[in-house]
Amino acid sequence: MNTQAPIGVFDSGVGGLTVVKEIMRQLPEENMVYFGDTARVPYGSKSKKTVLKYARQIVHFLQQKEVKAIVVACNTASALALDEIEQELTVPVIGVVEPGAKMAAESTKTNVIGIIGTESTIKSGIYAKYLRKIHSDITVVSRACPLFVPLVEEGLLEDRITDDVIERYLHEFKEYGIDSLILGCTHYPLIRNAIARYMGQEVTLINPAYETAKSLKQMLAEQNILNKSGEMAQYEYYVSDGVEKFSSFAARVLPCHVDQATVIDIESY
Amino acid sequence: MNTQAPIGVFDSGVGGLTVVKEIMRQLPEENMVYFGDTARVPYGSKSKKTVLKYARQIVHFLQQKEVKAIVVACNTASALALDEIEQELTVPVIGVVEPGAKMAAESTKTNVIGIIGTESTIKSGIYAKYLRKIHSDITVVSRACPLFVPLVEEGLLEDRITDDVIERYLHEFKEYGIDSLILGCTHYPLIRNAIARYMGQEVTLINPAYETAKSLKQMLAEQNILNKSGEMAQYEYYVSDGVEKFSSFAARVLPCHVDQATVIDIESY
Repeated sequence: MNTQAPIGVFDSGVGGLTVVKEIMRQLPEENMVYFGDTARVPYGSKSKKTVLKYARQIVHFLQQKEVKAIVVACNTASALALDEIEQELTVPVIGVVEPGAKMAAESTKTNVIGIIGTESTIKSGIYAKYLRKIHSDITVVSRACPLFVPLVEEGLLEDRITDDVIERYLHEFKEYGIDSLILGCTHYPLIRNAIARYMGQEVTLINPAYETAKSLKQMLAEQNILNKSGEMAQYEYYVSDGVEKFSSFAARVLPCHVDQATVIDIESY
Repeated sequence: MNTQAPIGVFDSGVGGLTVVKEIMRQLPEENMVYFGDTARVPYGSKSKKTVLKYARQIVHFLQQKEVKAIVVACNTASALALDEIEQELTVPVIGVVEPGAKMAAESTKTNVIGIIGTESTIKSGIYAKYLRKIHSDITVVSRACPLFVPLVEEGLLEDRITDDVIERYLHEFKEYGIDSLILGCTHYPLIRNAIARYMGQEVTLINPAYETAKSLKQMLAEQNILNKSGEMAQYEYYVSDGVEKFSSFAARVLPCHVDQATVIDIESY
């Protein structure tokens, strides 16, 4: 295995860039190929069958880029497709759900954990499954928050409307005494401040992106494929539609400038 | 041409059912085949190239169903793909934009017309183009309202949050003295009451679905392909993903029960 080969990272759209950002920070020497499925976004309301089909096409594309590992930087795809694509791949693959669950289990003191995400992620029950694997006595309270992604994409990060929607979705969590809340969708860290303000200091917000980058580092070390070349990392960005919107979102999320993204026909993979 | 052949109606998802409803009402004898691209919804933020590609696949599917005419019951697809698919088809095809523009031009007295729709529809400038073809001295004020579709899909039809978003998007229109507002997205008629409340009685809301069914009737009559069999109309529903969500939305919009919808692999067309 060529240790200088890039890591393939994919998401349903632009949200996965919050994971890319963490990988850049924690693994500054790793090359990356990012694919955002901007033509078929969002995945959060789609069925397992469809999301699995899309994930397989993307993985096929990334394999042609000769990636040494794959990060499924999308909660919905991690929830609905990770098990299958893991079995079908020879390179190591990690999703965002297991690292996020692990971090929440370590953080909780009350053993009552809240999870928010897309409809499909919540319906899959995947976070609860991982959490109960770690501690069988953890109570899980979950809620789909379908309006958060469009609010973030509309740029209403600090806005009264967003605050109202947060209250609408999250007020139940206050009754259950959760002390940790998993931000189970890659868009949610962008409204982290507003969510923190509403939930209060006693609730720790868990951003799986951070823990995913940490798990990735550990996995690459174990498999002895960390890039130690000392060269500056190279990043390539691919999307299935609309380079413009991608670039403006990337400028808001990433610490470095995205020179260009390339549109590919993902349906042909 | 077999006059009993169905009319093909398609949309990016479920919104086009508001057009289907009008066709059922105004053309109760016409058979219909509906396709909703629920796997790749929404189209409103996608590029012309992608929307055109999707529209071509759907038209290909509808042609295999031997439709006698096609209704593009999606503003974005009408805006971005109608001209091209019209040229490529031998059966007559109509979109929702031209009928909507015609109705607005007839309704306005101040000659100042407002248009709301998805990002791609508004960016295309298509409504303004049609309106100026009818009256060269019409002033057009337009605004993309990306949060309306998710709010409708979340079922918040009568809700304080929806009212706030309406105010945010539409307050500018009040300054321009519009007397007609085109609901340029098939989801918007579902929050028609809330929009009407905010805009006041002096503004007429234009629902292109109504006028599209009227134009369809006229077109079928001109081409002498109206179904006059006197038999009860048959309806078939196809989607690219998630029958469940489709059925629950259909139950809210349509006057008759949707027995079943069939999932097809639209990418293979």
